[in-house]
Amino acid sequence: MALVSISVSSGLSLVEQIVVQMKQLIDDGVVRDGSRAVSIRCFARDHRISAHTVAEAYERLVAHGYFQSRPRSGFFVSRPQVYARHSGDGEDGAMEPDHLWQLRSHFTTRHDRLGASSGRMPPDWLDVELIRSGMKSLAAKADTSLAQYGDPYGYAPLRGLLQTRLLALGIHAQPEQILLTSGATQAADLVMRCFLKRGDRVLVDDPGYFNLFSNLHLHGIRPIPVPRKPDGPDLDLLDALAREHRPAMMFVQSMLHAPTGSSIAPANAHRLLKLAEQYDFRIVENDVYCDMLGLTLPRIATLDQLARVFYVGSFSKTLSSATRVGFIAGAAQSVGELCNHKMVASITGSQVDERLVYHALTEGQYRRSVERMRYRLANALQLAGDMLEEQGFEVFCRPLGGKFVWARHPQIDDSEEIWRRASQAGILIAPGKVFRHNLQPTPWFRLNVAYCMEPALQHFLGSLRA
Amino acid sequence: MALVSISVSSGLSLVEQIVVQMKQLIDDGVVRDGSRAVSIRCFARDHRISAHTVAEAYERLVAHGYFQSRPRSGFFVSRPQVYARHSGDGEDGAMEPDHLWQLRSHFTTRHDRLGASSGRMPPDWLDVELIRSGMKSLAAKADTSLAQYGDPYGYAPLRGLLQTRLLALGIHAQPEQILLTSGATQAADLVMRCFLKRGDRVLVDDPGYFNLFSNLHLHGIRPIPVPRKPDGPDLDLLDALAREHRPAMMFVQSMLHAPTGSSIAPANAHRLLKLAEQYDFRIVENDVYCDMLGLTLPRIATLDQLARVFYVGSFSKTLSSATRVGFIAGAAQSVGELCNHKMVASITGSQVDERLVYHALTEGQYRRSVERMRYRLANALQLAGDMLEEQGFEVFCRPLGGKFVWARHPQIDDSEEIWRRASQAGILIAPGKVFRHNLQPTPWFRLNVAYCMEPALQHFLGSLRA
Repeated sequence: MALVSISVSSGLSLVEQIVVQMKQLIDDGVVRDGSRAVSIRCFARDHRISAHTVAEAYERLVAHGYFQSRPRSGFFVSRPQVYARHSGDGEDGAMEPDHLWQLRSHFTTRHDRLGASSGRMPPDWLDVELIRSGMKSLAAKADTSLAQYGDPYGYAPLRGLLQTRLLALGIHAQPEQILLTSGATQAADLVMRCFLKRGDRVLVDDPGYFNLFSNLHLHGIRPIPVPRKPDGPDLDLLDALAREHRPAMMFVQSMLHAPTGSSIAPANAHRLLKLAEQYDFRIVENDVYCDMLGLTLPRIATLDQLARVFYVGSFSKTLSSATRVGFIAGAAQSVGELCNHKMVASITGSQVDERLVYHALTEGQYRRSVERMRYRLANALQLAGDMLEEQGFEVFCRPLGGKFVWARHPQIDDSEEIWRRASQAGILIAPGKVFRHNLQPTPWFRLNVAYCMEPALQHFLGSLRA
Repeated sequence: MALVSISVSSGLSLVEQIVVQMKQLIDDGVVRDGSRAVSIRCFARDHRISAHTVAEAYERLVAHGYFQSRPRSGFFVSRPQVYARHSGDGEDGAMEPDHLWQLRSHFTTRHDRLGASSGRMPPDWLDVELIRSGMKSLAAKADTSLAQYGDPYGYAPLRGLLQTRLLALGIHAQPEQILLTSGATQAADLVMRCFLKRGDRVLVDDPGYFNLFSNLHLHGIRPIPVPRKPDGPDLDLLDALAREHRPAMMFVQSMLHAPTGSSIAPANAHRLLKLAEQYDFRIVENDVYCDMLGLTLPRIATLDQLARVFYVGSFSKTLSSATRVGFIAGAAQSVGELCNHKMVASITGSQVDERLVYHALTEGQYRRSVERMRYRLANALQLAGDMLEEQGFEVFCRPLGGKFVWARHPQIDDSEEIWRRASQAGILIAPGKVFRHNLQPTPWFRLNVAYCMEPALQHFLGSLRA
C-alpha cells in the first residue's frame, strides 16, 4: 500500500489524506474492485502511523461506499457507482414565471444573474455567528435528550421566550397557546389541514404570498383576493366580498406585507376585526417580518388577543433560514388541535433547530444583529425609493421597514415586459403576476432593496425611462 | 446596585450571576417595575467588571423580558407576567387508549411508570456523541450558507451518501430520485398529499403504525387492513382484498415491522410486487429500522428498482430523533412532484439537521454505534423471547432484530385487560388495539425488549400466569 503517501506537512489530517488518496486510487481503477484491503495493522506499520488513525480512515471509506467491512475477514474494496449530478439548475430561466417558478427562484442562485426581486438577503446581511455560537454552546451542553424526540409543542424554554416577545407586542398568550412549527409555512399548512376543507373560501391579500396560493390550490380551497392598499386591505371591498362569499378565514400579512411593503393602520386593523366578527371568519395574521419592523405597532392579534386571530411568526427571515423554526399562537384549544395535526404530519419539529434559535435569542446577540439589519434596510429603502422616483417609477408606498419595494413604470402596463427585458440584461425581476393568485397581469413588480444599489440594476431601470 | 453581589468563585459566569440576581430582584419586587436600570458604565465601575460583561447581561435581561431597552434613554425594568405551566402532563393516564394516545405516549416520560411498550429507546442506548461531534464540526466550518435556505431536495452530499447506502441494499437510485424529508412521517404525508385523494383505498399492515392510520383518516383515505404473518403480509388475503377494493397504494413495513417485529421473506416480496402489478397499485415501503437489521436482505424496492415502489428511510431511530431527517426514494418524476409538494408545505427541511446527519454518517462513528445497538438489541430480543415463552406467553415471531416483540397471553382474549392490570402495577403496556386502524380488540400486545429485563415487568408478567 505504498501507493498512499502520507505527509505530516499536508494541509489535510492523516485520516483525510488516506481517505482522499484511497478514493482516488479506487476511482482510477489502480486498486481493484473486490480486492481485499491491506489490514489496519499492516497499513499502520508500513506508514508509521497509529492503527487508530487507519481505522478511522477505513470507517470513512466504508461510510462513503468505497470499502466494505466483512466480519472476521477485514475490509474489501467496493467501487461505488458514478453519481449523476442532479440536472435542473437553471431550469427556471426557461420556465414561464408562475408560483412554482417564484418558489424555485428562492433556491437557485445563479451567479451570472442579479436576483433583484429575490426574497433572499445578501449572505453578509445575516449574522451566521448567531448559529455558530449556538452550535458550540449546544455541543458543550449536549445531553441524551438530544437523541430523543422533542416536545411536540416545541422546546418549552423557547415557547416561554416567545410568550415574552408576544407580550412586548401587547399580545397575551399562555405557553399552551404557542406551537412551534417548521417555519411559518408549516403553520399555514396546519391551519388548512385542521380548520379548512375542500371548497372553502378564504380571503387573501392581492398581491400576496405565492406559496400560500399554491398551498390553497392543493387543498382545494378557493382564494378570494382582497386588493391591498398602502394602509392595509381594501376594507370596503372586503366587506362586499365577505358578504358575497362567506369566507371561512382570511390570510393576511399585516406588517411589511410582501410584496408591497405596506403595513396595516391600527384603525384598519380594528375595522378588519369588526368585519371578521360580523361575517364570522377567522384571521391568520402572518408577521414573519416582525423583527425587521422593530416598531411595536399594534397587530391585529393585539386588538383581538388571539380569540379569532392566529398570529404566525418565524425566525427564517432575520436569524437563519437553514434552521426551520416558526410558530403559531392562537386560542388554546385550537392550538391543541393544530398540535395533534402537527404530530400526525411530522411527529415533532427539530429540537436541534429550536434550541439553536433559543440560544441565539437569549445570548443577547440577536437583538443587536437585527438592529444592524434594520438600519441597513432603512437606508436601502430610502435610497431605493428615491432612485425609483428619480427614474420616473411610481412606488406603491414607502415601507416602514423590510426589504421589499413595489413599483411600476408609468408607461408599461404589464411588468412581464420588464421581466423579459431585465432577463436580457442578466437581471432577474419577477413579474408582479407571480404574486397574484391567478397570475393576472399587473404593471407592478417587486424589488429587494438590498440589491437596488447595484449599478447594473440602476442602469437597466434608467434604460426604461420614457 | 449593590443589591447584586458578584463573586469570581461562583460556579456561574459573571454574566449569569448578574442575570440570575437581577431576575430575582425584579421577581421579588425589590427592583421596581418601570424604574430605570443603572447605566452599564456605572454598574461596571461599581462592581469592577468590564462594561462588556454588563452589556451582555443587560442584553439577556432584555431577551428574557426583564429589561426594556429604549434608544438614547438606557434600560428600564419591565417585570414579565408570570408564566402558567402547560398543563397536560399525565393526561394520557386518564385517556382511553387510541392512536393519539399512543402517539402522545412517545413524548410523555412518566418517571413513576415503566413504559414497557414504548417506542423510545433507553437514553443511553443512543449515542449522543454523534450529534455533539457533528455540532462542533459544523460550528467550526460554519459559513454564510448556514443562514440561507437549503436545497429543497435536501443537502446534496447527504443525498449522495444515501445513494451509496441504497446501492448496498441493491437499490439503484440517482440523486434526483432521493428527497430528504422531516422524518419518515413527512415522507408518507407527502405521498398522501401528492398521489392520493379523498375516498381512495390503500392497503395497510394489520397491525401497523398508528400514526399512519391517523394521517390516512385525516386525508379521508380508507385503509384496507392486510393481516400480518411472521413472513410478511397475508398475500392470499391481499389478493382477494385488492380484487375487491382496487386500492391505489399499499403502505407496508417490510423489515422489522412495528409492532410485530416480522420481516418479509424474499419470495413474498416477489409475490407482493406481482400482485401490485396485477392490480396496478403502488407501494410505499417503510424501512425505518433498516440500520437495526444490518442484514442486506432484499427489500421490495430491490426487486422493483423504484419503478412502482417508494422506499422510505429515517435516521430518527438509530441516530437521533431530535434531528428530523428521513428520506423517500422513487421514480425521478414522482420524486420531483413530491419535492414540489414539500416546498409548498414547508419550503425546505432543516439544513442544520441534514448536515449533522451527514457528519455523523461520514465520520465513521455511526456504523460502530449502530453495531453496538444491534448487538445489545439481539441479546435483549433473545432474553425477552425466552422469558415470555417461559412465562407461558405466545410470541408472534422471533424477530431478526429491532426492539419490538409481539406477544399474547393464551388465556386473555383482549390485551386491554393486560393494559389495565399493568397500569395498576405502574407499568405502561399499550393494548394491541392501538396498532389497529379501527381500534379492534386483540389479544396481542407489544413490548420494547430494551425494558424486558426490568424486574417489575418480569414480576408483573409472571403474575398473569394461569
